[in-house]
Amino acid sequence: MDLLNTTAGVPRIVIIGAGFGGIQVAKNLKNTPVEVVLLDKHNYHTFQPLLYQVAMGALEGDSIAFPVRRIFAGQKNFTFLMAAVQKINPEANTLHTNIGDIKYDYLVVATGANTNFFGSEEIEHHAMPMKNLPEALNLRALILQNLEKALITTDKEERQALLTFVVVGGGPTGVELSGALAEMRMHILCKDYPGLCLDDMKVLLAEGKPELLAAMSEGASCKAKQFLIDRGVVVKNSVHVEHYDGLTLTIDDGTVMKTRNVFWAAGVRGEVPEGMTLAPLTRGTRVKTDDISRVDGYHNIFAIGDVAAMITPELPEGLPGVAPVAMQQGKHLAKNLLRIIKGEAAVPFKYFDKGTMATVGRNRAVADIGRLHFQGFFAWLLWMFVHLLSLAGFSNKLIVFFSWAINYFNKDSDNRLIVRGFDTVKMQVEDV
Amino acid sequence: MDLLNTTAGVPRIVIIGAGFGGIQVAKNLKNTPVEVVLLDKHNYHTFQPLLYQVAMGALEGDSIAFPVRRIFAGQKNFTFLMAAVQKINPEANTLHTNIGDIKYDYLVVATGANTNFFGSEEIEHHAMPMKNLPEALNLRALILQNLEKALITTDKEERQALLTFVVVGGGPTGVELSGALAEMRMHILCKDYPGLCLDDMKVLLAEGKPELLAAMSEGASCKAKQFLIDRGVVVKNSVHVEHYDGLTLTIDDGTVMKTRNVFWAAGVRGEVPEGMTLAPLTRGTRVKTDDISRVDGYHNIFAIGDVAAMITPELPEGLPGVAPVAMQQGKHLAKNLLRIIKGEAAVPFKYFDKGTMATVGRNRAVADIGRLHFQGFFAWLLWMFVHLLSLAGFSNKLIVFFSWAINYFNKDSDNRLIVRGFDTVKMQVEDV
Repeated sequence: MDLLNTTAGVPRIVIIGAGFGGIQVAKNLKNTPVEVVLLDKHNYHTFQPLLYQVAMGALEGDSIAFPVRRIFAGQKNFTFLMAAVQKINPEANTLHTNIGDIKYDYLVVATGANTNFFGSEEIEHHAMPMKNLPEALNLRALILQNLEKALITTDKEERQALLTFVVVGGGPTGVELSGALAEMRMHILCKDYPGLCLDDMKVLLAEGKPELLAAMSEGASCKAKQFLIDRGVVVKNSVHVEHYDGLTLTIDDGTVMKTRNVFWAAGVRGEVPEGMTLAPLTRGTRVKTDDISRVDGYHNIFAIGDVAAMITPELPEGLPGVAPVAMQQGKHLAKNLLRIIKGEAAVPFKYFDKGTMATVGRNRAVADIGRLHFQGFFAWLLWMFVHLLSLAGFSNKLIVFFSWAINYFNKDSDNRLIVRGFDTVKMQVEDV
Repeated sequence: MDLLNTTAGVPRIVIIGAGFGGIQVAKNLKNTPVEVVLLDKHNYHTFQPLLYQVAMGALEGDSIAFPVRRIFAGQKNFTFLMAAVQKINPEANTLHTNIGDIKYDYLVVATGANTNFFGSEEIEHHAMPMKNLPEALNLRALILQNLEKALITTDKEERQALLTFVVVGGGPTGVELSGALAEMRMHILCKDYPGLCLDDMKVLLAEGKPELLAAMSEGASCKAKQFLIDRGVVVKNSVHVEHYDGLTLTIDDGTVMKTRNVFWAAGVRGEVPEGMTLAPLTRGTRVKTDDISRVDGYHNIFAIGDVAAMITPELPEGLPGVAPVAMQQGKHLAKNLLRIIKGEAAVPFKYFDKGTMATVGRNRAVADIGRLHFQGFFAWLLWMFVHLLSLAGFSNKLIVFFSWAINYFNKDSDNRLIVRGFDTVKMQVEDV
């Protein structure tokens, strides 16, 4: 492939990011008269909603990821390039990447979101995020390592800090993560770590808003909180973390506590590539687009998913940063791009909200499906069913299904492994 | 647990290494009047015979590892400590480790073996070993990354170097790895990497001895070589690698070739901990022991498995470095330790050789079971069956079984992921 010259007569659509949105754009351009180029810095698509289960050792990392090349094997007008985009140059219609410059006719920015530390370098340095697979495996290693350390330390204060787990952020990720930590405390701690008991481990969930799962119904919020409290999680609402230096955590309700485990799920910010100087950024560092996902200020640059804020008179706040929005926008954009190329009018996007769910652990979840709000065992079954079906790849589905089934009956899992990073001496394997 | 004081009245047996041997010692001391302490620098047991499948993306890393704590959950006289042993102090009967000094009454060294680069720092720096899970994942990342690079490079020589895979060492690991690379070339290369074709990729296997699988029967050796050649592997016997600087590989038959992929499976050396100054080392840096696994020069230090060379008049060469030897020695040693503690005479170890197998890929393996030597499909089925049964943990067995079944029908796998190492900024997660 010639990166700098588009195929004569066929427009080249370049998509940055192989997340839920980017994949849909590329898929829906199959067998159309365009050249599709998908870029991602990883060679795989990650099923982000299950990252917390990888972090908790309930699932293998590989089973929630899928190689991008396999998804598109056989799609003739498609090229995947493993590349990190460094800058967009809208004047020249090119991207500057670590593997060279790439020309585009139409650009789709589907770069997603990353953790938002709200400008605190101290917290960014010490708290653990969980937005991708390496970060989830990192979190898993930290949790397990601190349990090992707690067993052998003779310093009582240090021991307590090692066994105190603070999750910041009461959205779905924070709720699911603290629920899973509470289950580890109940079912695994005393069994696997003789010498530690239930009272030694503390799980705290801190959320800035007055309720958890603020995007969901009141019933879901209340019930989720109740489920967590029942499992021994200390839930603090309307509080904010002020400082964390790796040991001492200060919260604005006056709490000062020692902890070696602060997991940051308090917010995200769009991963906006450099170079779109004309594009206005809105709350959460998202790129403002119109109702056909076109980035304000550009005629051939589009943005979808978590990096985009589609703000219209009907939706002054934009759409939530969830997978279904990205997927629907991706599918819709593919069709609109074909219309635009043919000289036809683009059709405005309309989001079809299928509902929202979050799980709090074994047998417990909350779901809002249209006007239907329900909580408990049935919501939990539905949550598993929907997530299983959404996973890419038959073998991933099967492996996650069996892992869940076995974990359910064992109240335990086989994946609590501290698998270290890579041998950094071997410089052949580079980071992108 | 008091690391420095053994429990009054009960002897403490400390085992270094949670490999095949160490696990057996600890298991077979269940419900006996001793205190068992098992140390390992990882928190998991690795099923090393399947590492090459992890490296090739055929299996998930987690499915061939099992948390040590889970293996021993419920064993009352057992303690696991995640620790790296820095030195043995036989005079004081203590171990110096990264988590403190540990007292022992009896010590079992079951540290296994690591890659032997035969003193070449150049090769050690540039060639990739594959003796543990992080190394296997590292290998996987390198293979996949070099395929990605080959797609975009415009330098013909570099492209060829990226697509040339050299496996050094024709033992089971080298044969299995080169067979798997040949299958990737046949079934995956052209499908997943449009632009690359069969002839672009080369797989070479270099072995110092005149035959492959030297420890097996002549029939197995010949047939394995034939299977590999049929699949397009260039097999060179009676050759030795002289130099490899990360690009240029020199072999002593005059071959000079450019390659970015040299995988080193040419030899192992015992991982002998420091401090056993009296212990004689034999070929392959293994500790010489008598027929009850007692290390020469010490009365309460024993060594089993790959780190040990049990040399007796009947076995002047010692036993092969394979899992069954380690497991049988471990089980036997546990019983002997109890005899020794009771003041009874120890019983000499006798190895029961159940046979040897190696697979060359899809439908093809070689097996020597006693006088029975057979090759092909049935050997391959047997190989899978034996490996599956030997894996620790029900869910590992199930996941590996389904992965194999799906891979078999797809001639492909979902695990070709370049999952990067850990965020080194997060210093809380330390390397041991």
